Amino acid sequence: MESIPINEIDTPALLIDLERVEKNLQQMQQKADQYGVRLRPHIKTHKIPELALRQVQLGACGITASKVSEAEVMARAGIGDIFIANQIVGFQKLKRLVELSRKTNVAVGLDGIAGARRLSETFSAAGATIDYLIEVNSGLNRCGVLPGREIIALIKAVQPLPGIKFRGIFTHAGQAYGKTSLAEVKQVSQFESRTMHEIAEDLQALRFNVQTVSVGSTPTMKVWEGWPGINEIRPGTYIFNDAIQVALQVAQPEACALTVLATVVSRPDSGRAVIDAGSKVLALDKGGHGVETAKGFGMVLGRQAVIDRLSEEHGIMTVDPGEHLAVGDCIRIIPNHVCPVVNLFDKAYGIRNGALETVFSIAARGMTQ
Amino acid sequence: MESIPINEIDTPALLIDLERVEKNLQQMQQKADQYGVRLRPHIKTHKIPELALRQVQLGACGITASKVSEAEVMARAGIGDIFIANQIVGFQKLKRLVELSRKTNVAVGLDGIAGARRLSETFSAAGATIDYLIEVNSGLNRCGVLPGREIIALIKAVQPLPGIKFRGIFTHAGQAYGKTSLAEVKQVSQFESRTMHEIAEDLQALRFNVQTVSVGSTPTMKVWEGWPGINEIRPGTYIFNDAIQVALQVAQPEACALTVLATVVSRPDSGRAVIDAGSKVLALDKGGHGVETAKGFGMVLGRQAVIDRLSEEHGIMTVDPGEHLAVGDCIRIIPNHVCPVVNLFDKAYGIRNGALETVFSIAARGMTQ
Repeated sequence: MESIPINEIDTPALLIDLERVEKNLQQMQQKADQYGVRLRPHIKTHKIPELALRQVQLGACGITASKVSEAEVMARAGIGDIFIANQIVGFQKLKRLVELSRKTNVAVGLDGIAGARRLSETFSAAGATIDYLIEVNSGLNRCGVLPGREIIALIKAVQPLPGIKFRGIFTHAGQAYGKTSLAEVKQVSQFESRTMHEIAEDLQALRFNVQTVSVGSTPTMKVWEGWPGINEIRPGTYIFNDAIQVALQVAQPEACALTVLATVVSRPDSGRAVIDAGSKVLALDKGGHGVETAKGFGMVLGRQAVIDRLSEEHGIMTVDPGEHLAVGDCIRIIPNHVCPVVNLFDKAYGIRNGALETVFSIAARGMTQ
Repeated sequence: MESIPINEIDTPALLIDLERVEKNLQQMQQKADQYGVRLRPHIKTHKIPELALRQVQLGACGITASKVSEAEVMARAGIGDIFIANQIVGFQKLKRLVELSRKTNVAVGLDGIAGARRLSETFSAAGATIDYLIEVNSGLNRCGVLPGREIIALIKAVQPLPGIKFRGIFTHAGQAYGKTSLAEVKQVSQFESRTMHEIAEDLQALRFNVQTVSVGSTPTMKVWEGWPGINEIRPGTYIFNDAIQVALQVAQPEACALTVLATVVSRPDSGRAVIDAGSKVLALDKGGHGVETAKGFGMVLGRQAVIDRLSEEHGIMTVDPGEHLAVGDCIRIIPNHVCPVVNLFDKAYGIRNGALETVFSIAARGMTQ
């Protein structure tokens, strides 16, 4: 570990409150245990192998990843069970997926016959087999098959293909990020689970072996109270929480474990302060999946200040006249959407009781491919 | 160089059209030469030492950078004259700036007495000296001193401080990005130059030695036709151009040298296609400095498709019913704002005549501090 006193951490920097992380991880694991489902956290939020290993240690059945490259990083770190909740269609990635599948238990998403043929072709040519889960569109309208006959038709078409094996169904009701009240988030959560339960029942009635019925996003899982037939949940952001989760009322600011440390670099007038955290640090997200729910570009802690504008290197804040903020002062910010913020950094500082305990390498950052 | 045929480049990837880059670089250098001013391009757009060296080879007097860390990368690559157009106030960065100033000709921005004292304190304690340029707020309302008596008062207060030396004034009229017509961009450009010329005259009348009067952004420099007293211009984006420059009518799509190569990963219905380029690749910018000017999240080349929504890993496109786009097909996209897109990648592919010529390491990406 680098030996840096906390007040000498250069800015902008990511600070991770280790006690709060532990609490957030335990709470979600307890919920999974309480309802008797597997927790398979999405590691895109933290991208840090040590934290993924801690999730597994606390009881997670494995992890969820978005990319083959992320999965490779996590497999190297010793994670033995990985679900890539995404369509993998490029042949370079498919070849890497074959290699990965020889070293670790890996499954992948599927939502169409064209993707299925590519997967089958690559795996069968390599003499390998991979499990797939059919992605269901439960309202986000991104990828996935709509509930109904189309799913049954797809599985029937895909099942004869060699090299790939049906494991179950998954969905991500990300439209929860567009809701403005807790009641609406709960409705989305119930719709997500009910939809998947019904599909699973229909498939089982047709004698398909549906091992996994997987749902989840942090908001829909925070308000979740279990559902028949659901046996896996895949939240990600809950490890840190963020200002969007606070805006959705599924997290309190105190439960936000990651903050951005920034420095005031200019006070051009009494109402404006400029910090060294712009869009290259805080990202431009104002809500999940393109829906605006947060006010400003992050929550400034303990200061009467709103981050109104970001350019690449600067955050431009409107500051209350009574707020003393001098050039050189540091502030802490809860980012709106923590996942892309983590992706913009190479390392993060782990803090306990206000003291620097460890420096994490964000090993799966920048995994574009 | 890695030996990858262009059709085997995995996606998402950055493709740089080397001939177009050369043309863009030469055009701006010719403009600088024509009007007898120094060109000091901002390297935040490309972050690639080889391209900075090419800019200098073509006649640039040096480069502009945003961060000490970016300047360090470029100095190591052999760039001998660097202006950091930003306020540097943290003591860790100031110490690195001292080290950098011993190796290369470096100057820095200043916009207040508090920052000046920190700079002076660090440099004088180290027995070193650094040149500074006062930042003028010519309408962007970010950092900088407003034109008028405040600038004179600031320089008078700062001049006696040891370890720092006045070199001139600079501004960035980034409000040009909020304009919607070419005529308005021209007005901003003229205002930027006129303001700086007047301040320089006032300072010279008071016997201040104003060596450098520096202006620039790509839009204001694209429409620039010279101005008395201005002797340095600092555009950055012109090397690649992007969809925001096209929206501002200061560049044609043909002049955009950087495109994102992406793959269709899902066709959930006849009107929607999903690509493997989301906000982790295309960034969420819809205009410069927070003003929306572009339509969608990038210009899709040669396809009747609009990128309506981005989540982290997915671009969700509305596709014309007549457009054939299958899973596995590749498309090319001109990003809205090219600078943050480059920052999200570790490497970029240099293409000439449709063939891969070189792979650039984006050595100054991720320079958060």
